[in-house]
Amino acid sequence: LNSLRVKLGERSYDIISGNRIFAEFGNLCRAMKLGERVMIITNPTIGRFYLGTLKESLVNHGYKVVDLEIPDGEEYKNLATLKLIYDALVDARLDRSSFLVALGGGVVGDITGFAAATYLRGLSYVQVPTTLLAQVDSSVGGKTGINHEKGKNLIGAFYQPKMVLIDVSTLDTLPEREYISGLAEVVKYGIVCDTGYFHFLDENVDNLLKRDKSCLETIINRSCELKASVVSRDEREAGLRAILNFGHTIGHAIESLTEYKKYLHGEAVAIGMAQAAKISEKLGYSSGDDTRKIVSLLEKLGLPVDLPRFDMELYLKAINHDKKVKDGGIIFVLNNGIGAFSLEKITDLDSLLKTCRIGG
Amino acid sequence: LNSLRVKLGERSYDIISGNRIFAEFGNLCRAMKLGERVMIITNPTIGRFYLGTLKESLVNHGYKVVDLEIPDGEEYKNLATLKLIYDALVDARLDRSSFLVALGGGVVGDITGFAAATYLRGLSYVQVPTTLLAQVDSSVGGKTGINHEKGKNLIGAFYQPKMVLIDVSTLDTLPEREYISGLAEVVKYGIVCDTGYFHFLDENVDNLLKRDKSCLETIINRSCELKASVVSRDEREAGLRAILNFGHTIGHAIESLTEYKKYLHGEAVAIGMAQAAKISEKLGYSSGDDTRKIVSLLEKLGLPVDLPRFDMELYLKAINHDKKVKDGGIIFVLNNGIGAFSLEKITDLDSLLKTCRIGG
Repeated sequence: LNSLRVKLGERSYDIISGNRIFAEFGNLCRAMKLGERVMIITNPTIGRFYLGTLKESLVNHGYKVVDLEIPDGEEYKNLATLKLIYDALVDARLDRSSFLVALGGGVVGDITGFAAATYLRGLSYVQVPTTLLAQVDSSVGGKTGINHEKGKNLIGAFYQPKMVLIDVSTLDTLPEREYISGLAEVVKYGIVCDTGYFHFLDENVDNLLKRDKSCLETIINRSCELKASVVSRDEREAGLRAILNFGHTIGHAIESLTEYKKYLHGEAVAIGMAQAAKISEKLGYSSGDDTRKIVSLLEKLGLPVDLPRFDMELYLKAINHDKKVKDGGIIFVLNNGIGAFSLEKITDLDSLLKTCRIGG
Repeated sequence: LNSLRVKLGERSYDIISGNRIFAEFGNLCRAMKLGERVMIITNPTIGRFYLGTLKESLVNHGYKVVDLEIPDGEEYKNLATLKLIYDALVDARLDRSSFLVALGGGVVGDITGFAAATYLRGLSYVQVPTTLLAQVDSSVGGKTGINHEKGKNLIGAFYQPKMVLIDVSTLDTLPEREYISGLAEVVKYGIVCDTGYFHFLDENVDNLLKRDKSCLETIINRSCELKASVVSRDEREAGLRAILNFGHTIGHAIESLTEYKKYLHGEAVAIGMAQAAKISEKLGYSSGDDTRKIVSLLEKLGLPVDLPRFDMELYLKAINHDKKVKDGGIIFVLNNGIGAFSLEKITDLDSLLKTCRIGG
């Protein structure tokens, strides 16, 4: 078992990772002194593969376990599904000493974390992410929430889990397109945080594409390490943490304009990162060579980079509904070369995007 | 202006009180360095009296102000009303630097606080309580939330305001029954925290009933002081803060069984406190004389003390749905004489209540 600490004072917790480690779950929960009753929240796709093992491990350690399956898909990360969870929590009579387990990808993790943050004014919860995206990004850092019909993650809370348990073997059952999509967030850490990591990824494209286990353990650990380091220094996104939104401002707008149907999150972020790289170059923060390297790595991994054709007004409207708008300007994350970042307040994103767009 | 500090580290804030002080509001918000955009959330009854003055003060200090009226009444403190608020926040394009103002009683305060806790993962907010109940209790301490159809306040968060502004002149327009109901929570502080305060209240029944301004300022300050002192030592209700739930376990059950229609919150709490006093006596924590004094003060203030007739099974079921149930037992707050408390885990509340019931 690999163990990595997210340092947040009394809210600190461990990210524990390894291969085929679900049988250890009950034991780890006991070591964390988590309460007697637990609800595992998952979706039918993931539940079919892993719910049995996880539940058995908890039951073997004396826990009273109930489970709840919620529908699969970003479009269900909403108030209606949250209400299903609240109803189930009331019916199962979970109390303040109980805890929740999020078994699944980002949707399950985000909504379960938010339910934990808000049921009885806060229960403990554990993240058991089963997609690459959730393992390297959404399960770490305590961002929880749901979507509003007019924007992603508009409703939520910062609420840290008690533990994150990552079993890399879950990636064996992850569909190809979802796996590739998760690589976008991995590349992101290289672009804004770590030159060496970017080059490691660039040199390991083949290993990444064939899901080499050793390579996977490396990228999960390194990505979590980089994310934990940022989150430890800025838990509530006062400033620094915004760098993790590299590519996301445009990415979110793409997801919103295509109604979350055409692109997976990581695909939209890949396109957003390509555009952001070009804008960074235009504003003098990076060279044309940097942009080419970034775009090339994304393409080699099979990620899209071309901005879908929508009127600039539509893009701007979608971006304005995004939560990162501050007093009229957009706090935009730029790559400063490769491996570093800059933040800039941009007021003319539409014209920048028009000039710099990659694709179309 | 009276000012009282709620000490919670970086989440500390002031409770500012006085007579006819709403014109100062914009100035106070500026002093707190609150952002440019603000949404005042109120209900039609309260809005009619005070929204104009409050809004004018904010506009005079350069704020961009929008307002939202939500329906009045405990039955609207639910997910549907919360959704109305989220929709309005999205439409008004409030950003993370914006803030909310809760102008009204406990319902407006609780739901606005919860919206602030969860919109964009947390906005600043200010409590401007206009009922006695909200002024001496619910606006202080950061408990926010909504009801679930199966229980009160099951959904919520601990989330502190940036300031609480109390204008005692708002009590002039408070209906008699609501005012009297608020006195129940005032008496509660005397019973579990402060013998001297209990006797002050007992000697000032006439002044309380005629809403003497000087007497009101005294009880609002002392009640807030006692609550702030408890909250400072136990922000998230790990233990000590539970004493503020004296009378509430049974009170909540009464409210639930009568579907929030027959009793106001304070009335139900008054009944719950009378029963709790009798149970405390039965368990040897207090004397028959203590119980008589408590019941007598409640009655002199015009508060009910008799337990409504419902099967004990119904009471127990309602109480079991309450959030204070812990591993099968109920953490129950007892008065230890008058002016002090004890906590006890009770597993046979039904038989205790059957033996000890006052009324019926």
